[in-house]
Amino acid sequence: MLSLVGKMRIILIGLGVVGQAFLELLELEKTDLYGKYGLHPVVVAAADSSSMVYNPRGLDVPSLLRHKRSRGTLRGYPDEVLDIDLVRDVDAEVVVEVTPSNFKTGEPGISHIRAALQTGKHVITANKGPLAIEMPALVEMFQHKGLRLLFSGTVGGGTPFLRFVGKCLSGERIVSIRGVVNGTTNYILNRMEEGKSFQEALREAQEKGYAEADPSNDVDGWDSAAKLVILSNWAMDLGVTLKDVSVRGIRGVEITEDMLSRGKTVRLIASADESGLRVQPEEIDKRDPLVVPGALNAVSFTAEISGRHTLIGKGAGGRETAAALIRDLVELKLYLGGAEPCS
Amino acid sequence: MLSLVGKMRIILIGLGVVGQAFLELLELEKTDLYGKYGLHPVVVAAADSSSMVYNPRGLDVPSLLRHKRSRGTLRGYPDEVLDIDLVRDVDAEVVVEVTPSNFKTGEPGISHIRAALQTGKHVITANKGPLAIEMPALVEMFQHKGLRLLFSGTVGGGTPFLRFVGKCLSGERIVSIRGVVNGTTNYILNRMEEGKSFQEALREAQEKGYAEADPSNDVDGWDSAAKLVILSNWAMDLGVTLKDVSVRGIRGVEITEDMLSRGKTVRLIASADESGLRVQPEEIDKRDPLVVPGALNAVSFTAEISGRHTLIGKGAGGRETAAALIRDLVELKLYLGGAEPCS
Repeated sequence: MLSLVGKMRIILIGLGVVGQAFLELLELEKTDLYGKYGLHPVVVAAADSSSMVYNPRGLDVPSLLRHKRSRGTLRGYPDEVLDIDLVRDVDAEVVVEVTPSNFKTGEPGISHIRAALQTGKHVITANKGPLAIEMPALVEMFQHKGLRLLFSGTVGGGTPFLRFVGKCLSGERIVSIRGVVNGTTNYILNRMEEGKSFQEALREAQEKGYAEADPSNDVDGWDSAAKLVILSNWAMDLGVTLKDVSVRGIRGVEITEDMLSRGKTVRLIASADESGLRVQPEEIDKRDPLVVPGALNAVSFTAEISGRHTLIGKGAGGRETAAALIRDLVELKLYLGGAEPCS
Repeated sequence: MLSLVGKMRIILIGLGVVGQAFLELLELEKTDLYGKYGLHPVVVAAADSSSMVYNPRGLDVPSLLRHKRSRGTLRGYPDEVLDIDLVRDVDAEVVVEVTPSNFKTGEPGISHIRAALQTGKHVITANKGPLAIEMPALVEMFQHKGLRLLFSGTVGGGTPFLRFVGKCLSGERIVSIRGVVNGTTNYILNRMEEGKSFQEALREAQEKGYAEADPSNDVDGWDSAAKLVILSNWAMDLGVTLKDVSVRGIRGVEITEDMLSRGKTVRLIASADESGLRVQPEEIDKRDPLVVPGALNAVSFTAEISGRHTLIGKGAGGRETAAALIRDLVELKLYLGGAEPCS
């Protein structure tokens, strides 16, 4: 029998842009992850929206990716399995959950995460839906069971907003958060500032791949609100969910010549302070650090002693989010201890 | 005999704005530092430019501060000592070195830091001079002796630029750094952008307490260059000193109407990349994240995978720098281990 002691067995749920980028990066960094952290990840199971594959010795990642990319589905892959509850029934240390964010029900992500919890598996996720809907309960349940729930890919992707608060401002009380956390709407508002109409700017954003065919999660503020929930719970321990946020998107917003001549513009600002949580378009000084070009993200954390800190960087792309998932994998490994793998 | 096991004995060298703010904050946070980190700091000795005080059981910090503030000197304080080499002769775990930065010789800081090293003491410093002059050698010698040399107060004060790279971008290679790291010149350039002359803006900065009576360290770029040396060695492991930096300050710079109408302005940019280290005034797009108002600081780190990250925050004030010194003290305590103090 093959010993799997020391290996980190992964169940990957979701094989869209992020899931595929995760597999690719994992393959690419394999040697490095082992050399630097003694981390030996083995993907034992994966699911997309149409099928599931499973191999207790580890799936052949390059071949799996080729199959998925040429056929658009896992169906027909040699390791395909039917009638199995992947998250519950497969032995693994961690479930990587990257199905699409659903801000109404949090499903199917919530069910996957709860199933992992019930069967003693750690979870790494880039799915904002479950956290937006029930982050305080999920965090508490994972803590109670001594399991980790890691989600640095949910906010900012490549830009470590969550890590910044946790590691760089530790010991300080965060009194407020203000941020531009949705790249698509920021791109649209920047183009509107340059004279485009909302519709023109939206079409451009779609052509560039920033906005989805159905742009409402971005444009109506839900994506920003979900990220605000995650940031506020993490940085300020507010214990909130999506229904605690007052949300207004950027439809109907105008950026006037008069406004611009007064040195002002409009940004979709997500904010949390003593008075509550809000996502809304706000008139803002063009010189404010939150006024960033293109599809960038920017978040200001105001700390009690050291004042306002603003971090600016790329938002979430597939590759950036995948990099965040890998960072979480390393963090999990460090948490589980540095025992050298035996194979 | 009083047992000092578990206590962290401090020798404080320098009692200017930063040294005094450090003592104040230490007194204020005493209970918290002990409760959260088991850290029990005891200031056993202190020196200003005119005298020294020493008490092996710990100086009475409030009374010391009162004496220094009312008389402007330590002279005449009950615990005053003469003819003693404070850093060498006094038993302590750590020397906190906060004498003024000297960018020509690094003295007297370098001598204090070397004396600490030779007598087996850790060093926490906010003094940029010694690091600008011989950071690679100092870092190596401290490592070799198993001692810590901590300096988060040297760059950014309250804004954790160094910690950001160390803790949030760890594992990624930093390929370049570009920053605005001197608040005084940034304030002056912002005022010049609004129509003031260099001289008027400088006078204003002096009135507001941003610029010193002799403003040349700021205005001629030396303060920026020293910070660039520290950032580059820390983030890119370049092994450089001040003489590796090409330095030009902001005297003679003009910000023209034409420039502004093209959406450009001028900032004093400190940069490090494959082609070398530079501090110079650069024409820059007004929408660039490094273009920040007032006396703020901003640094962009470009990482190989996740791209450009920009962190913006307050530069160094006395209180912010003191907060950084305290954070270093906590880090030293965590490094030395969590043994509970016995008293």
